[in-house]
Amino acid sequence: MTGYKFLLDLAIILLCTKLLGIATNKVQMPQVVGSLAAGLLLGPAMLGIITETDFLQTVAELGVIVLMFGAGLETDIKELKKSGKASFVIALCGVVVPIIGGFAVSYFFNRPGVIDSDASCTLFLQNIFIGVILTATSVSITVETLKELGKLKSRTGNAILGAAIIDDILGIVALTVITSLADPSVQIHLVLLKIAGFFLFSIVLGYLFYRMYKYWMTHSDKMRHRHVIIGFAFCLLMAYVAESWFGVADITGAYIAGLIISNINRSTYLQEKFDVLSYLLLSPVFFANIGLAVELPKMTPTIALFTILLILAAILTKVLGCGLGARMCGYNPSQCRRIGIGMVSRGEVALIVASKGAAIGLLGSSFMGPIVIMVVTTTVLTPILLKLVYKNGPVSNVREEENITAYHEKLTDLRRSISKGKISQ
Amino acid sequence: MTGYKFLLDLAIILLCTKLLGIATNKVQMPQVVGSLAAGLLLGPAMLGIITETDFLQTVAELGVIVLMFGAGLETDIKELKKSGKASFVIALCGVVVPIIGGFAVSYFFNRPGVIDSDASCTLFLQNIFIGVILTATSVSITVETLKELGKLKSRTGNAILGAAIIDDILGIVALTVITSLADPSVQIHLVLLKIAGFFLFSIVLGYLFYRMYKYWMTHSDKMRHRHVIIGFAFCLLMAYVAESWFGVADITGAYIAGLIISNINRSTYLQEKFDVLSYLLLSPVFFANIGLAVELPKMTPTIALFTILLILAAILTKVLGCGLGARMCGYNPSQCRRIGIGMVSRGEVALIVASKGAAIGLLGSSFMGPIVIMVVTTTVLTPILLKLVYKNGPVSNVREEENITAYHEKLTDLRRSISKGKISQ
Repeated sequence: MTGYKFLLDLAIILLCTKLLGIATNKVQMPQVVGSLAAGLLLGPAMLGIITETDFLQTVAELGVIVLMFGAGLETDIKELKKSGKASFVIALCGVVVPIIGGFAVSYFFNRPGVIDSDASCTLFLQNIFIGVILTATSVSITVETLKELGKLKSRTGNAILGAAIIDDILGIVALTVITSLADPSVQIHLVLLKIAGFFLFSIVLGYLFYRMYKYWMTHSDKMRHRHVIIGFAFCLLMAYVAESWFGVADITGAYIAGLIISNINRSTYLQEKFDVLSYLLLSPVFFANIGLAVELPKMTPTIALFTILLILAAILTKVLGCGLGARMCGYNPSQCRRIGIGMVSRGEVALIVASKGAAIGLLGSSFMGPIVIMVVTTTVLTPILLKLVYKNGPVSNVREEENITAYHEKLTDLRRSISKGKISQ
Repeated sequence: MTGYKFLLDLAIILLCTKLLGIATNKVQMPQVVGSLAAGLLLGPAMLGIITETDFLQTVAELGVIVLMFGAGLETDIKELKKSGKASFVIALCGVVVPIIGGFAVSYFFNRPGVIDSDASCTLFLQNIFIGVILTATSVSITVETLKELGKLKSRTGNAILGAAIIDDILGIVALTVITSLADPSVQIHLVLLKIAGFFLFSIVLGYLFYRMYKYWMTHSDKMRHRHVIIGFAFCLLMAYVAESWFGVADITGAYIAGLIISNINRSTYLQEKFDVLSYLLLSPVFFANIGLAVELPKMTPTIALFTILLILAAILTKVLGCGLGARMCGYNPSQCRRIGIGMVSRGEVALIVASKGAAIGLLGSSFMGPIVIMVVTTTVLTPILLKLVYKNGPVSNVREEENITAYHEKLTDLRRSISKGKISQ
């Protein structure tokens, strides 16, 4: 028998994320900012009403998987292919520049007498590691914001998504290189081989699944529950396989699963269903959970200064690095700004990397606090900045959305009439 | 950080419940039988691929709550009021007769030299307790089956739902009486007071919420995510309050929350959304989880005989007891059969009662095995029997459902066209 506290937790999370989301929306900010704020408000950093539980964490994990699966479903594969090379360049610059920036900032602070480190590795490795933490991009916040702005399918949206996926891979490589320097039992070439294996596996299995699933879908007279369920199971399996067989992030697996299915004509039907699953339960928990994990650290003037510089480095290195990469690939300055800012959010990825490093002596305990604050700040800032830089772009497809909602309303009315027997058979 | 095994578990559960569901459907049995079988197949009773985890259990708990909330949303409140008195009589007979039947069967077996009991209470109390276990009705299986058959809103469907809710209350009273006899720290009058308090609370809060929510819904230009989310939060809160403040089952709270909202015109819109949440994630886990909990016990000829008699008693006492109650309230014999059979399923409720009893010395360990088998058998048999007795009734509203699906298909096509830009704005 399980306890009942989770019911209360879920109810409070749903209410708070929605109310704060509506509030942030009223002041022209994306709803996702409200959801993040709800987590901070409810968690140990402020009110302390809800503590992280295994259940919430697992639901949150499922939430980000469904979110990335949805992003895959919505991706225009032709557009992604077009932006593939550019994405790679953007991701590469978005990894190299933050490593240098992170190293530079911590070089001046991470020394005896300034901020004492209790980590076991050399100071040089520790500083590099802080750079590696800055490379992580948490694309989920950006995806949600772009969705709200109706820009997920835009050219810049595709470049950001592609770059974030590649960034994830490069981030794993960087993390592997540095942990193998700290821990001789990790073998770099094996890790690289596994990553290559994952993409080979995805291509082969993806192609087979795509053929079968497409045949099945197009030969059914109508869409049924079973189509949606099999699609979801495929997403879960890809996420699991990515993480546990190949050491690639589960969200990358989920995104690729979505990408594979996105090419099938009827994928909008699936999208609709996963949207419900997402907004009604999984997403609120995911976004709130990021805030729930935050515990504010004790501050000294030096640590406060370090924190501020780290935040600046985190923002500037991504904006400059990715923006530079985008510029090199022929995007115009306004697009470069959007792409750079779309990559700023660090989210939970950076926290996971940091905690892995702390466990093997690559990160002193005094540095965890500043990193947490950097993650929260970049995560909350990204949707706000994105909204600003997308404001002056071409008109979004909001009208299209409104159209769909109108049809939905009509359908609902119709169903109501039917269920009340007003329309005879 | 959480592990990744849950992704694999979920994928396997979704695939197996769906595939076995389709298979049972092919042989004219309700899909829910397949889902239950999937749990048995995957769990320790057979293949042992999946073990119960806290996460799965919590998702299952959430699943049955959403299921009962949905049943509440679909309930025709006028019809329920009409069948209120009848439901009470049916529930009362469905509690008294099984207690007698359970007592009678265990009276002959629960004695030294036949089946030795290691429980600390008197044999008399132990035998009564086995009767109390037989009173529990797990209405979720019946709800799902009636939904599949399109009979949830029928007159008998309402009678069953009402009776199951009252049965739940009477079951709590019976459990309380017997545990208070075994454990002097439990006070009967306090428990009864709390149950009365819960219904008073539901009426007052329910009325207030209903007025506010209805006002809000009918004054919105269209249905939005927020309406669904607030409805869901209300369901979760009612479930939590029922269980933790008043000691009433959480599913009763969820059902009442659904009932309160069902009166609002736009509730079909909500229903649609919760259906997705249910079939795509929560329900498969709930039904599979019942099977996952089963571990087959060691058998001796005496225990096997006892098990068979216990199963017969479980089925016959509910069919006869509830059928008799229904007959007294003027239902015709065919309706009585349906109502009686709708109440046969014991599901997880009986297991929870049994494990509570075992913890305070009311149940010998040798009896747990037979009880588990009785629960599984009644749970799997109920949908099969229900299908049989509803077969020869009036035509269901399947055509109506088909109509709705057709409209949905149209809408999906439309959305697809829009998203491909075929229709200009």
